[in-house]
Amino acid sequence: MTQELFTINNLWIMVATILVFIMHLGFAALEAGLTRAKNTVNILFKNTIIPAIGLLTYAFIGFNLMYPGEMFAGGFFGFGGLGLSLPEGWDTSAYSEGYTFFTDFIFQAMFAATAATIVSGAVAERIKLGPFIFFSILYVGICYPIAGMWKWGGGFLDTLSTPFYDFAGSTIVHSVGGWGAVIGAYLLGPRIGKYSNGKTNAIPGHNIPLAVFGVFLLWFGWFGFNGGSVLSADPGTVSLVFVTTALAGAAGAFGALLASYLKFKAYDITMVLNGILAGLVSITAGADLMSPTEAVIIGFIGGILVVFGVILFDNIKIDDPVGAISVHLICGIWGTLAVGIFGDLASGSQIVSQLIGIVSIGALCIAFSFILFFLLKKTTGIRVDEQEETEGLDINEHGMHAYPDFETKE
Amino acid sequence: MTQELFTINNLWIMVATILVFIMHLGFAALEAGLTRAKNTVNILFKNTIIPAIGLLTYAFIGFNLMYPGEMFAGGFFGFGGLGLSLPEGWDTSAYSEGYTFFTDFIFQAMFAATAATIVSGAVAERIKLGPFIFFSILYVGICYPIAGMWKWGGGFLDTLSTPFYDFAGSTIVHSVGGWGAVIGAYLLGPRIGKYSNGKTNAIPGHNIPLAVFGVFLLWFGWFGFNGGSVLSADPGTVSLVFVTTALAGAAGAFGALLASYLKFKAYDITMVLNGILAGLVSITAGADLMSPTEAVIIGFIGGILVVFGVILFDNIKIDDPVGAISVHLICGIWGTLAVGIFGDLASGSQIVSQLIGIVSIGALCIAFSFILFFLLKKTTGIRVDEQEETEGLDINEHGMHAYPDFETKE
Amino acid sequence: MTQELFTINNLWIMVATILVFIMHLGFAALEAGLTRAKNTVNILFKNTIIPAIGLLTYAFIGFNLMYPGEMFAGGFFGFGGLGLSLPEGWDTSAYSEGYTFFTDFIFQAMFAATAATIVSGAVAERIKLGPFIFFSILYVGICYPIAGMWKWGGGFLDTLSTPFYDFAGSTIVHSVGGWGAVIGAYLLGPRIGKYSNGKTNAIPGHNIPLAVFGVFLLWFGWFGFNGGSVLSADPGTVSLVFVTTALAGAAGAFGALLASYLKFKAYDITMVLNGILAGLVSITAGADLMSPTEAVIIGFIGGILVVFGVILFDNIKIDDPVGAISVHLICGIWGTLAVGIFGDLASGSQIVSQLIGIVSIGALCIAFSFILFFLLKKTTGIRVDEQEETEGLDINEHGMHAYPDFETKE
Repeated sequence: MTQELFTINNLWIMVATILVFIMHLGFAALEAGLTRAKNTVNILFKNTIIPAIGLLTYAFIGFNLMYPGEMFAGGFFGFGGLGLSLPEGWDTSAYSEGYTFFTDFIFQAMFAATAATIVSGAVAERIKLGPFIFFSILYVGICYPIAGMWKWGGGFLDTLSTPFYDFAGSTIVHSVGGWGAVIGAYLLGPRIGKYSNGKTNAIPGHNIPLAVFGVFLLWFGWFGFNGGSVLSADPGTVSLVFVTTALAGAAGAFGALLASYLKFKAYDITMVLNGILAGLVSITAGADLMSPTEAVIIGFIGGILVVFGVILFDNIKIDDPVGAISVHLICGIWGTLAVGIFGDLASGSQIVSQLIGIVSIGALCIAFSFILFFLLKKTTGIRVDEQEETEGLDINEHGMHAYPDFETKE
Repeated sequence: MTQELFTINNLWIMVATILVFIMHLGFAALEAGLTRAKNTVNILFKNTIIPAIGLLTYAFIGFNLMYPGEMFAGGFFGFGGLGLSLPEGWDTSAYSEGYTFFTDFIFQAMFAATAATIVSGAVAERIKLGPFIFFSILYVGICYPIAGMWKWGGGFLDTLSTPFYDFAGSTIVHSVGGWGAVIGAYLLGPRIGKYSNGKTNAIPGHNIPLAVFGVFLLWFGWFGFNGGSVLSADPGTVSLVFVTTALAGAAGAFGALLASYLKFKAYDITMVLNGILAGLVSITAGADLMSPTEAVIIGFIGGILVVFGVILFDNIKIDDPVGAISVHLICGIWGTLAVGIFGDLASGSQIVSQLIGIVSIGALCIAFSFILFFLLKKTTGIRVDEQEETEGLDINEHGMHAYPDFETKE
Repeated sequence: MTQELFTINNLWIMVATILVFIMHLGFAALEAGLTRAKNTVNILFKNTIIPAIGLLTYAFIGFNLMYPGEMFAGGFFGFGGLGLSLPEGWDTSAYSEGYTFFTDFIFQAMFAATAATIVSGAVAERIKLGPFIFFSILYVGICYPIAGMWKWGGGFLDTLSTPFYDFAGSTIVHSVGGWGAVIGAYLLGPRIGKYSNGKTNAIPGHNIPLAVFGVFLLWFGWFGFNGGSVLSADPGTVSLVFVTTALAGAAGAFGALLASYLKFKAYDITMVLNGILAGLVSITAGADLMSPTEAVIIGFIGGILVVFGVILFDNIKIDDPVGAISVHLICGIWGTLAVGIFGDLASGSQIVSQLIGIVSIGALCIAFSFILFFLLKKTTGIRVDEQEETEGLDINEHGMHAYPDFETKE
């Protein structure tokens, strides 16, 4: 290939890397906006430190767990050694036609923290900071790259007779976060006052503009998340991915608007925001396979699902302050299945392979996060005490307020 | 042309697409910041749903209204059918030297919602949500693409003996929004308390940092809005456009600072912010034609005009909470005329053509938005009732507050 | 070189330009977030007008001071004339292999305002607006480009037998700002109430989400700041720079977290935020020279230094509300020295050259800013009066509040 094409491809993946980077600000803003002012510093602290953890652990161990080269145990595990070692020809198309070694690493590294960021939203307002950081290091540094290796690193899901397909990570990124989220939220229990006398009490987010910033920044970054996953600047494929990503997000907004209006008779902005994310998560597994019309259908259904997901988890008293489980787990599963139903790969055997991927990665993540959270619960504890939760984590864990100049309620 | 150049061109238009996308967050932040806390959810709701409307309607009908291929009625109307159908060679330079079919669509689709977003600011804090969404769907889905077709789709403004010139849309995008804004604000009437006893009462925006975010994000996105309108990555033209766009915005800030300081003896940040936007709107029609010095002059005059525009509309009691009409309509007209006065095309006959474009698109937009808003006013009504306006639209239309944890005044 | 490679290179520098642009919003948000609500409009006003000043003065005089072509006085001074004049072949690779003349100008112009923006943070909450704007115009328009010329314009620091090395501006950009900041803060004196009875009183920032936005936007933009400083899209070098930039920021977060936890026994988010910036400033001088491991070490040390810098300046009663001096000056010096200690150029003679650069540019900036601030202090005065400082600059200098709908304390 020409040096020119290699340079263009590499440039696009680098730009996509920056776009994925800013998604971490999107998560921070969304989660802070949808929770209470008394816990804002705590949430922002987590969402600031997690990307740093992601980058460092991915350099130290994650990249070589996810792309180990050789594998043991039949495609279930591999390890390429600690740290980053430059292969021959690392900055030429001999390494890859789409990017240099360092671009490859940094693009993947930006994704890594996402797994913990998603958990962060679901366990917000009641988890202890230290144990959560400990969890994040292991979940991001070990569990996520192993799950990723199973498909993207050439593991057993990639070598099924009909290979499992997950273009940019409905399962490999979003569900991995979603499983950790549901386990964490379950083991922690609901926030004080969320469920009482068989009723669900809304605990409104303290800053809706922040939540809107979060969702728009996530959508913005998603063009890099999905568009960069083409792994080249191929004009046809990347532009198709842009169209499906844009339309699925838009359709998700309308799906959630419709479902929430019919259900609650109100124009609920938080549902519309989660509907956009639902559409985006849903299209992620097959963003390069779908027609515009199929993208609209998949996103629209995702938007509906997220509303019923939120209701479902409240019914079973799993308290997820920001709706992360519905967005990332429910729609992650839906989007992964959609690859078997719509688009170029639709077939019965593809549906089976998609289910194998969903279940096997689900099993890994459930086991990993359950054991880890459970051990933490039995040792350090994972939940702040009642007084701290009531007063807010900001003043107790961080000794400061997010908005000290303003009068707040309570 | 080489595959390499095609790939580079396409990559730039895709990056520009993302930049235009984030302008919608800019509009949301600006409009929310410059209005009151009790209407924030409402404004954000509109500015979240409008981009979704823009993307979906543009896919369904708008793109084929704007670029119909064949035209009827002497260049006034054309229609290429519902939905998106892939032409032969859609992903090669046979379709266009600058982009694939999908890149073409998605870049244009990101612009479409802007027409309604501009209106949203001018009618803020008193319009009913349902009718506004209905208006937005038709204005974005039908009126905007027809106006665009007249020039960009090869319609009659493009085939004048001296063709009308509007590089990136001072008239086609900004004035289209501006005309809808002035009609909407006029038919709605001013907010309660804005004008009393012959006096104009300032109703200050509730969150200046939000407004600053909005303007910077708009400026950021404008590099894609104008830079992408080159429709290729041509180094000379795109870099010239970057320079004129940057300098016109900067000069607009100083024009507005000077005018507002002389007029009000205060350093008014909202005027400076609108001055930046004024400079940007003003350069948009001729961003590829002007020298750096001309860009400074055009932007500076735009910044002055926006201050007097705001005063003018208050004098005639058209209440525009965010100054959208002055920014997008007044400076849209100014920038369009400037193409006949400065730069490569300056000439008497160009001025005439620019006037023809301004007037004909103005007539279309006035007629379309007047009829639509008038019918809505006579049927569903377009204005919330007095109690709702006083209490705020957030609690009445959405059942929630934007900042529930904080003590607010009143 | 091929037109394709030229177009790609130019495209990357243009994208990098946009990324550097948005850093100004980052500075605005960070400085506003870390100060009090009563001074927010004032801070945002400065941070909005400074980029406009930077762009206009750089077009008028700065670019031709920084890249004068010919030099007088042995590489200490040169001037290429007022305004921008297009050289022959300005839009071809004859001008430069990496960019057109206009791209060259606009990329550099975006950096220029940074010098004053850094000062703005250190002098916040007590400086008079008019004198500060006057200072900014001269510091950005004259002092910064002369300092830059000494190295990047081919001046005497570039022609040392072992040339001074500063890849993207640890000294040339960040220290230049940092020296102005320390002089300004010293001549102004501390804010009322900051130091009393030998004690340092924390004056907490009013909006932590704003500060987080600021730091993430700065990090986001830094990929363009450092990545664009490669001055081409060379896949190997740019991707290495991305990796070192990302890892140094992440390591800075941990360095500051560790140092502040050991020192204060609290998870201090403002220290972590400044730690990220510290890591980024520290890597900037040698981002293209370091291995990933070296980047982690350099960033980590930067993160530790920023914590002790903040303590140090409080001990000597130089009141820097946002920690700008520690971040930009201390870590700017550290990063510049690190080029002599780590990476491809490490050597004793390189350390000497680095010291020569640090000291000579320091001397220029100290002299320039001291004389300028001192003259302003003796004529117009530079500090608002006590009542204005207590009531806030917003209402006194701008006649408005940043958050008029909210109840504030005091």
